[in-house]
Amino acid sequence: MIELKGKPVADCITEKAKADIEDLKSKGISPRLAVIRVGERPDDISYERGILKRFDSAGCGYEVFTLPEDCTQKELDDMFDGLNNDDMIHGILLFRPLPKHLNDAHIRETVKADKDIDAMGIYNQAAMFAGDRNAFAPCTAQAVIEILHFYDIDLTGKKVTVVGRSAVIGRPVSLMLTSENATVTVCHTRTVNIADELKKADIIVAAAGKAKMITADMTAQGQIIIDVGMNVDENGKLCGDVDFDGAATSAAAITPVPGGVGAVTTSVLLQSTVKGAQRALNGRM
Amino acid sequence: MIELKGKPVADCITEKAKADIEDLKSKGISPRLAVIRVGERPDDISYERGILKRFDSAGCGYEVFTLPEDCTQKELDDMFDGLNNDDMIHGILLFRPLPKHLNDAHIRETVKADKDIDAMGIYNQAAMFAGDRNAFAPCTAQAVIEILHFYDIDLTGKKVTVVGRSAVIGRPVSLMLTSENATVTVCHTRTVNIADELKKADIIVAAAGKAKMITADMTAQGQIIIDVGMNVDENGKLCGDVDFDGAATSAAAITPVPGGVGAVTTSVLLQSTVKGAQRALNGRM
Repeated sequence: MIELKGKPVADCITEKAKADIEDLKSKGISPRLAVIRVGERPDDISYERGILKRFDSAGCGYEVFTLPEDCTQKELDDMFDGLNNDDMIHGILLFRPLPKHLNDAHIRETVKADKDIDAMGIYNQAAMFAGDRNAFAPCTAQAVIEILHFYDIDLTGKKVTVVGRSAVIGRPVSLMLTSENATVTVCHTRTVNIADELKKADIIVAAAGKAKMITADMTAQGQIIIDVGMNVDENGKLCGDVDFDGAATSAAAITPVPGGVGAVTTSVLLQSTVKGAQRALNGRM
Repeated sequence: MIELKGKPVADCITEKAKADIEDLKSKGISPRLAVIRVGERPDDISYERGILKRFDSAGCGYEVFTLPEDCTQKELDDMFDGLNNDDMIHGILLFRPLPKHLNDAHIRETVKADKDIDAMGIYNQAAMFAGDRNAFAPCTAQAVIEILHFYDIDLTGKKVTVVGRSAVIGRPVSLMLTSENATVTVCHTRTVNIADELKKADIIVAAAGKAKMITADMTAQGQIIIDVGMNVDENGKLCGDVDFDGAATSAAAITPVPGGVGAVTTSVLLQSTVKGAQRALNGRM
């Protein structure tokens, strides 16, 4: 069984990004990410810490913009508008979910496509819908694809079962895998026999958000398992959607949690920020 | 075997639209569709004829705007802009594919969401991506859903195999069926064993665009088959993607071609035009 570790994938993406950043700087443009955080959710702060570390290591600029949890919709939208129109900013990441009294409708509809590095805006979502592979994808969905590519896992004609149908993972990753010529089945809470769908797959992408819901008896010999889950188990430890120890006995390859998909996400964010800067340079904004 | 005829579905949708049109007229708004046709493609003219007949029968307004096949991009975009800003128009349909020297980029990016009754614009495509069921869908994809609803075919937990991954049918219909709680598998030209995927389905949606490619030996007893194909067979006769006579021996229900999905499309266009007018009335534009 091969453990599909995220670190080498992230390192490879980061090395490429570093070279691209040097190149951009030599051309007078310094890639820069804006992170918008509302409130002090521990998940957001933990993700933010990972982003800053990654961006520091690559010499990429960033700035975190914070708003109090009880800020108004107008304050959020105004902050966003300023960044959307700021030529020094090449990517905007908004932490979600937002507090209940706020929504992202204005941001989704107005974010510039070339700054929309987490694909929350309608332009990139429509492009994913249409199968345009140049569009930005949500970072975690893109991280899944990067892992598959890095480990030379061929997708053409492969049967992939995706568990989860969210707009952040399940839907984008299934559309992207279809564009990569995989035969994709999307399962969810209303699927009648998930075990059956999982057993027939060559590749499983687990994005259900439910700790260890995929047990060994639901998988088959020789499968490749990409676990997007990031849950806390009954002992308070981080775990995925897959029962790693169980599934590891039959899988050909599996991503660990932590240290798998999650470890790649911030490098994809870096890569996308660099792409945003390249597009700005090429006058595509 | 039940033949899932499109006519009663279309009639039902048309009757409801007629009532809605009367209601709208009583409130001072007269629903009106604009059709843009470039050139004289026989397919377009035939579809146009079907539309006008349907709209006449329902007392719904329309106007066909034509451009010569060698028109410029600016002429097309200008015509579109005029209709997009015309308050008397509640839906815009552009026949595609366009001649090779033209593209629909400007139209896709600027069409008002509430007039985009065939979902060619980014707003509705992003909404379909995100699983928003209030969005407009491409008329033919919506026609598939209407047939399934009309004949009370339950979708929750059902295994649906979609053949085809186009932005006009395969992708939207698979996202919509996922939102309707079906477990959807999308097959395409690179799928290794299509017969296997078809046999395991409760419901087949065939949108490959290849005459009679789905033969009886690829189907199973008791299935429901929705045939979106509209092809010409070796004898010059209209036929679907499914070998009807063969599949009919085992299927529980199947849509004929012609007289199935195709017969519903213009009624969906009518329904959507009415919705566009209702949204205009409600000030949602």
